[in-house]
Amino acid sequence: MTTLRIAEIFGPTIQGEGALIGAPTVFVRAGGCDYRCSWCDSLHAVDSEYRHEWAPMQPEDVWQKVRDLSGDKPLTVTVSGGNPAIQDFGPLIALGKAQGYGFALETQGSVARDWFAELEMLVLSPKPPSSGETVDWAVFDTCLAKAGDAPTVLKIVIFDDADYAWARDVAARYPALPLYLQPGNHTPPPPDAEDAVIDMDGIMDRMTWLVDKTLADGWYSPRILPQLHVLLWGNKRGV
Amino acid sequence: MTTLRIAEIFGPTIQGEGALIGAPTVFVRAGGCDYRCSWCDSLHAVDSEYRHEWAPMQPEDVWQKVRDLSGDKPLTVTVSGGNPAIQDFGPLIALGKAQGYGFALETQGSVARDWFAELEMLVLSPKPPSSGETVDWAVFDTCLAKAGDAPTVLKIVIFDDADYAWARDVAARYPALPLYLQPGNHTPPPPDAEDAVIDMDGIMDRMTWLVDKTLADGWYSPRILPQLHVLLWGNKRGV
Repeated sequence: MTTLRIAEIFGPTIQGEGALIGAPTVFVRAGGCDYRCSWCDSLHAVDSEYRHEWAPMQPEDVWQKVRDLSGDKPLTVTVSGGNPAIQDFGPLIALGKAQGYGFALETQGSVARDWFAELEMLVLSPKPPSSGETVDWAVFDTCLAKAGDAPTVLKIVIFDDADYAWARDVAARYPALPLYLQPGNHTPPPPDAEDAVIDMDGIMDRMTWLVDKTLADGWYSPRILPQLHVLLWGNKRGV
Repeated sequence: MTTLRIAEIFGPTIQGEGALIGAPTVFVRAGGCDYRCSWCDSLHAVDSEYRHEWAPMQPEDVWQKVRDLSGDKPLTVTVSGGNPAIQDFGPLIALGKAQGYGFALETQGSVARDWFAELEMLVLSPKPPSSGETVDWAVFDTCLAKAGDAPTVLKIVIFDDADYAWARDVAARYPALPLYLQPGNHTPPPPDAEDAVIDMDGIMDRMTWLVDKTLADGWYSPRILPQLHVLLWGNKRGV
């Protein structure tokens, strides 16, 4: 089977973002990413400088760790990264589903996989202009097609007016997809820090800015949510 | 038509609690309640001492105010209270639905109404032991029956271990209903204050206590969410 590069596995905790906010979950964070967003808040799982910290694991070993953490009680496993879609998580998902677990996957939509159709939820998070990255919409659409009937949502991080305008365009392109807007974390943790200081007032200001702007525009279809885990635990890792 | 007693109408803002957290909404807060929870955070809409502040309004007038606030762009209207189910919101809901709006109703489930079936979402919030109130489960079940196919969720506020144990029993009674657990606000605003001071550290502590307890029990079916509006705006009213 495929060897997976895993940056961290932790939980159970609650999902802090988007459609599953508040839901108990175990996180499997894949190492490696085809993007390098300017404001990445998970560089320890992205920058190849940290590659030596990513454990090569067989799907069975990842699965055993999830079982241990969850006490063998089924829940939704969140697979994030980095971009987990650059690796083959199909075998892990098959192992988990056979035991009643579900899987939510978070990816930017730059790599399409047949196993997206096996997900409990596909969270596509196309990166806005402030990231410095560019979305290939043809590939993005292939991701949507691969998901098939699996529930799929959009999550867009917004740092500034340009990101906001871009998000409106994306929403117009995919009117049927539930959309979650999330203010950016402008004080992301440096990758070496386990529990970096955070500018909580600034986080709150950016959230209220985004709420006010969206509502003032009469744009009522997206949900607007902060990173709840940052509010609760700051930039601390492993929660 | 029915005259409604309305404590306040405000928005658009985002829903701060439960299943629709983060969703743009206009709140219509009904005046009056058949309960008197010990820790009520909306006494200005409950205590009859404030009855003179509740505006007698026709459904058409309430509706016009919602249209004005939302700029005539359809969204989800949240009807809360007090207990809105002690009044007849059927005519208001009919007016709004005819113009493409949806309605979410928050009630403890002590009064059942035929118009529950017209809701976009029925949020039933049975009150735990710490409230000092007692749930009549026969009436509660009638509320569920009246909702019919309308999406229905449970939201339970938890202040202490006894509330938590009670919530587990309620969850076992209604395994098919999505359940949202919410830590109690132990510093609710006094009804005369527009923007009372809040113990934010205490709020956070109660949230992490509830998260830790639920996860340690391996109880993974409920979502655990704070009152987002309190985190963002404290006890300020009208947001």
